[in-house]
Amino acid sequence: MSENPITMQGPVCPVPLSHNEQIVMGHGSGGKMSLDLIAKLFVPAFNNPALGAGDDAGVVQPSQDTRLAISTDSHVVTPLFFPGGDIGRLAVCGTVNDVAMLGATPRYLTAGFVLEEGLALETLRLVIASMRAAAQEALVQIVAGDTKVVQRGKADGLYITTTGVGIVPTGVAIGGAKAQPGDVVILSGTMGDHGIAVLGARGDLGFETAVQSDVAPLNHLITAMLSASSRVHVLRDPTRGGVATTLNEIARQSNVGIVIEEDKLPVRPAVAAACEMLGFDPLYIANEGKVIVIVARADAEKILATMRATQYGEAAVIIGEVKAEPAKRVLMKTRIGSTRIVDVLMGEMLPRIC
Amino acid sequence: MSENPITMQGPVCPVPLSHNEQIVMGHGSGGKMSLDLIAKLFVPAFNNPALGAGDDAGVVQPSQDTRLAISTDSHVVTPLFFPGGDIGRLAVCGTVNDVAMLGATPRYLTAGFVLEEGLALETLRLVIASMRAAAQEALVQIVAGDTKVVQRGKADGLYITTTGVGIVPTGVAIGGAKAQPGDVVILSGTMGDHGIAVLGARGDLGFETAVQSDVAPLNHLITAMLSASSRVHVLRDPTRGGVATTLNEIARQSNVGIVIEEDKLPVRPAVAAACEMLGFDPLYIANEGKVIVIVARADAEKILATMRATQYGEAAVIIGEVKAEPAKRVLMKTRIGSTRIVDVLMGEMLPRIC
Repeated sequence: MSENPITMQGPVCPVPLSHNEQIVMGHGSGGKMSLDLIAKLFVPAFNNPALGAGDDAGVVQPSQDTRLAISTDSHVVTPLFFPGGDIGRLAVCGTVNDVAMLGATPRYLTAGFVLEEGLALETLRLVIASMRAAAQEALVQIVAGDTKVVQRGKADGLYITTTGVGIVPTGVAIGGAKAQPGDVVILSGTMGDHGIAVLGARGDLGFETAVQSDVAPLNHLITAMLSASSRVHVLRDPTRGGVATTLNEIARQSNVGIVIEEDKLPVRPAVAAACEMLGFDPLYIANEGKVIVIVARADAEKILATMRATQYGEAAVIIGEVKAEPAKRVLMKTRIGSTRIVDVLMGEMLPRIC
Repeated sequence: MSENPITMQGPVCPVPLSHNEQIVMGHGSGGKMSLDLIAKLFVPAFNNPALGAGDDAGVVQPSQDTRLAISTDSHVVTPLFFPGGDIGRLAVCGTVNDVAMLGATPRYLTAGFVLEEGLALETLRLVIASMRAAAQEALVQIVAGDTKVVQRGKADGLYITTTGVGIVPTGVAIGGAKAQPGDVVILSGTMGDHGIAVLGARGDLGFETAVQSDVAPLNHLITAMLSASSRVHVLRDPTRGGVATTLNEIARQSNVGIVIEEDKLPVRPAVAAACEMLGFDPLYIANEGKVIVIVARADAEKILATMRATQYGEAAVIIGEVKAEPAKRVLMKTRIGSTRIVDVLMGEMLPRIC
C-alpha cells in the first residue's frame, strides 16, 4: 500500500470561531465562502492526502494494482424538475463527472435520499427513472442506497447525496495541480446554461427563457480524450462558482497563471441576455455538463478534434493558456483590449442551483 | 471481472402507483413500509446483483484481486446531540458498521453535508470533531466531502450522508443469505439503548432516563471474530426496526426459520422501564453499536469468548438458533413457555432516530 497511515493529528479547527458565526447561504455558493468553510473546518479535521489534494475526487490505493477515485455530492436543487434535467439526472451526472475528472472510469454509485413527508410517490418515481436513465447512459451501477424521511417542513421535497467510485487507469495522473506554463485551456461548450435554466424554472428571471440545462455525464467524452492524448494535465467541471472560480482553483493548485480571452468564451445568446438583465456574469454561473481541459499545447488540436466529435463536446473551444506568471491568478483579456483579474465567486449568487 | 454487465432492463416501477400516494413518516421506519418502498421503487429501477442482494453494503469486484464493499446512509437524527453520541459519530459509525457487516475492512469514507442557513458554526465544528474522533477510532480516512446550504426551514440543522468503501478479504463470503439450519444466533449486547437515548434527549419520554446511546464502530470487533473463526455466516447490525426486523430480513434472505428465546434477550433495566411506560417493545428499538452474529454451532463458544474480550462485545450472548422451518419466519419462545411469531416492524415507531 502506498498510502500514508491515518493522519489526523492537526488541530480540529485552527481558526477560532466567534460564538455568533452562523451558516449563511453564501457558504453553499461554491465560491470564496465555501472554500473558506472547507479550509477552516473540514480539511484540518479530516487531514489526509486524498482530501487535502483539493480535487473533485479523492484518489486512494487499496491494493498494489488498484487505484480508486472516490467523490460525493449532496444535491438540493430547487425546483426538482427544470428544462433539460431534474435532481435525479443531476445527482448521477454530478458525481459521475467528479470521478471522471481524475481520469478515472466511474463504475459504482450509491444514493442516499432524504425525503420530506408528503412528497408524492409519483415524483419520487420520476426522479428514480431519471437516475436510472442517466446511470445507463454513463454505464455505472447504483450498488447501494438509503432512504430517510423527515417531517413536513424539514426538507424541500427531497435531497439526494450520491457517491461515486471509479477506477484510475494505470499511468493516469490527472489533477488540479498538474497545469504547466505553455498548456492550452479548452472549454467543452457554452457557459451558464444550467444556472440560467434552473433560475428560469423558478420564475426568478421575470421573463421567459428557452435555455435548457446542460446536465450530462461526461465520462465517455473524457475516455475519448485520454485515448487520444497522454498529455491531458487537468480536467475539472465548472459547476458551482462557474468557469471563473474553477480556473482560480486550478491556478492556485498548480501555482500558475491562467489567461483567458473574453471573445473566445462561448455563451448562448439567451444566457447572455438573461445575465445582462440580471447583472450576472456567465463566468460565474454553474454548468453541469461542461469540462475545462488543460492540455499540452502539442496535443491541443488533437484533443479539440476528439471533443468536437462527441455529443457533449461539439462546441469545444480554446479559451486561453497557462503562464508562469502571475502565479495563482486568472487574468482575462477583454474585448476592448485591456486585461483584468478574474477572481473567485464572492458571496452567494444563485442558491440551490445543484 | 466477475461482474455482470450493467443490467437495468426491468420495468422502472412494476407496481402502479395511485396518484395520491405520498411519502409518510413510516416510509423511514426501517420496517415494513421502508422495505416495501425499496422493493417497489428502488430495486427494480437500479436492478443489479450488488443492490439486489439486500445486504447492508453492495459487494463489487473492480479487478481480479480486489473486492469492495460499498454502503451509504443518510443521517437525519434529532436532536443532533444525545447522551452517548451525536449525528457526527452516528454518521461515521453507521456506515463503518454497514461495510464491516459484509466482513470487509472499512477504509474510506465520504461525507455530504446539507446545512440549514442559521446553523451555528460552533455546532458544525463539534459535529466534525466528533466525526474525526470516530474515524480515528475506526481507522478510516474521510477522503471526499461536500457541503450544500439550504434556506431556514428547509432542513433541521444539518443532515449528513456518509458512504463507506471497504476491502473484502480473500475467501470471506458473509451475507444475509448465508444462515444455515443448526447455526447459533448471537447478539453482542443490550437492545434498544440508542433509540431510548435519543427519545430521552428529545424530552419525549416524559421522564428522565440515564440511558446512553450505544453508537460505536464495530469493525475491530468483527475483525477479531473473523480471525477466530471461518464459520461466521451472517453479520448484521440491528439499527432501524431493531433486532426483530433484522432477524426477519435474515430469515427471508436465507430461507430459514430463526427461533429466539425471550429470557435470553439482553435489555438494560432503564430501557425496559422506558419501553414499558411507552408501550414499546425493545425488540423493535434501534441499536447503533450492536451486531447479530450467525455462526456455525461448533464455533459459537469461540466466537462468544472473542466478542466478550472486546470493548463493544462484553455483553454478548446467545439468543437463539437457526432452523429449517418455518422458513422465512422468526419465532420467539416466551418466558411463559409459549411460542409466538415475531414480525417486522409495522408503520412508524420512532421517527428520525438515525
